[in-house]
Amino acid sequence: MGFMQSYAIIGTGAVGGYYGACLQKAGFPVHFLLRSDYDRVKEKGLIVESIYGDFTLPRVNAYRDPSQMPQCDVIIVALKSTQNHLLPQLLKPLVGENSIIILLQNGLNFEREIAKIFPQSFIMGGLCFICANKITAGHIRHLDYQEIVLAEYALNYQSCGITGRMEAIAKDFQKANVKIALKADLLQSRWEKLVWNIPYNSLSVILNATTQAIMGDRHSRQLVEAIMQEVAIGARSCQREISASFIVKMLSHTENMKPYLTSMKLDYNFKRPLEIEGILGNALEMAREKATELPKISMLYQQLKFLDTQNRK
Amino acid sequence: MGFMQSYAIIGTGAVGGYYGACLQKAGFPVHFLLRSDYDRVKEKGLIVESIYGDFTLPRVNAYRDPSQMPQCDVIIVALKSTQNHLLPQLLKPLVGENSIIILLQNGLNFEREIAKIFPQSFIMGGLCFICANKITAGHIRHLDYQEIVLAEYALNYQSCGITGRMEAIAKDFQKANVKIALKADLLQSRWEKLVWNIPYNSLSVILNATTQAIMGDRHSRQLVEAIMQEVAIGARSCQREISASFIVKMLSHTENMKPYLTSMKLDYNFKRPLEIEGILGNALEMAREKATELPKISMLYQQLKFLDTQNRK
Repeated sequence: MGFMQSYAIIGTGAVGGYYGACLQKAGFPVHFLLRSDYDRVKEKGLIVESIYGDFTLPRVNAYRDPSQMPQCDVIIVALKSTQNHLLPQLLKPLVGENSIIILLQNGLNFEREIAKIFPQSFIMGGLCFICANKITAGHIRHLDYQEIVLAEYALNYQSCGITGRMEAIAKDFQKANVKIALKADLLQSRWEKLVWNIPYNSLSVILNATTQAIMGDRHSRQLVEAIMQEVAIGARSCQREISASFIVKMLSHTENMKPYLTSMKLDYNFKRPLEIEGILGNALEMAREKATELPKISMLYQQLKFLDTQNRK
Repeated sequence: MGFMQSYAIIGTGAVGGYYGACLQKAGFPVHFLLRSDYDRVKEKGLIVESIYGDFTLPRVNAYRDPSQMPQCDVIIVALKSTQNHLLPQLLKPLVGENSIIILLQNGLNFEREIAKIFPQSFIMGGLCFICANKITAGHIRHLDYQEIVLAEYALNYQSCGITGRMEAIAKDFQKANVKIALKADLLQSRWEKLVWNIPYNSLSVILNATTQAIMGDRHSRQLVEAIMQEVAIGARSCQREISASFIVKMLSHTENMKPYLTSMKLDYNFKRPLEIEGILGNALEMAREKATELPKISMLYQQLKFLDTQNRK
């Protein structure tokens, strides 16, 4: 075996825990940063129940302080984006020359922010299509899907093609039996994901509803479609095109899904902060930079801000 | 005493019961149409607890079938607008030559619909600024305010000035100690009322909140203001002007109100149908006739339609 890239996992929840465990199982050196789950994971390791086969890692490299961690080749950020204000401090000790930072997060524009803080690093965005929950500390249940869409960030989200760095990471993930797709244009992929995330995350909270209930009512279904079209207007303001057929595909895909509580609705139910800024606020801001108003998304944003505040009072 | 106009009250809830009782107390012949409360009111009459003094009417002219009622000079419709599909049938036996029909209801465009069905009648719109509840059958509690703003309908909502008919009705209400203001332009008054009704009724249901909570949060307060501005755009499409200072007045008036559950929120809590069409749908339609889209109000409409359906499943 030749040179193996080392990985740091920042935020060992369902997403970070699952992908980190897959990488370690495949033989890669992985270092996990934890907070509340540290003691348990240090002692017992990680348990993964997965539709692709259960496995246990009795020993993992667990840390609660990033300054104790080694510098790693690849730093995977799997925190909720509501904690991104902590990243400058958390990442500083980990980032070396030529580090790769992958944001496995929902939402727009975080790569640009991180690139400003770590201009010497390579920044990528990873979009996860995975259904996984953390049952208890160090115990992850992986229910469905697992694909990652990966793309690299270049200044102001210029499309930068498929880099060798991306290919090296894709190889690692493939060794770990994780499906990965490489994309040339990160911003295109981010806006595409928002086509789903903005309407369903927002409406599931505002209307207190599953995706199935939303799609089963004529009015809310029309509203979803209208919001998707507004996301496409936002994308267009950034010179990215969302086709009408992509929207049709998202609608019919969701109609055929099992009833699903979105991640924002789960956060709401558990009275955790909602990813409003990443998913809606930053999209509004990027469009506004291009003098484009998105009135429906702007209203969803304000409704969610109100509900989030009330919910955590 | 000279000639006294006779009154029919269609829908003896809090609003119809209160104004009808005031008119009867002042000596006018009043005929009340009831449904579920008929037996009780036939037997016991009406009880009004009011900040302006309590009174009881032990005997009232109560009906459960409009064909038993005499033709009246003035027919006051005080049903919720969600029942307006019943009006052609309910009003037919009551309407004579030169009848006056007053819609004491929320929402836009109902006068036009009624005028089409009863082209020989004079149609007026009455906007009630009253805080009253029906506690039980025939028992009304009047908590605050009672003013009526009255204006007459002319074809396609042309402004038609202050008519002699309006003045005669104003005199009757003044005799009954009800404050009444006459307006030349019904459509102007209807749009003005929507400036308050659309944002607060809608958001109180969608956000599950009092007017106070809505005004106490920066984001929802901004949203209210943005919606009010959209109502003004709708009004403008109908050649009616809502001034910026009117909007400022509505906002500060609401900020200084006691915490208040809107009528739509009360309907929602009691699982009654919501007045979505009258308050939002008809405004959207009138604007659309003038090729004007109101994206925020359109989204509120779709959200409310979903919530109303789920609520009464």
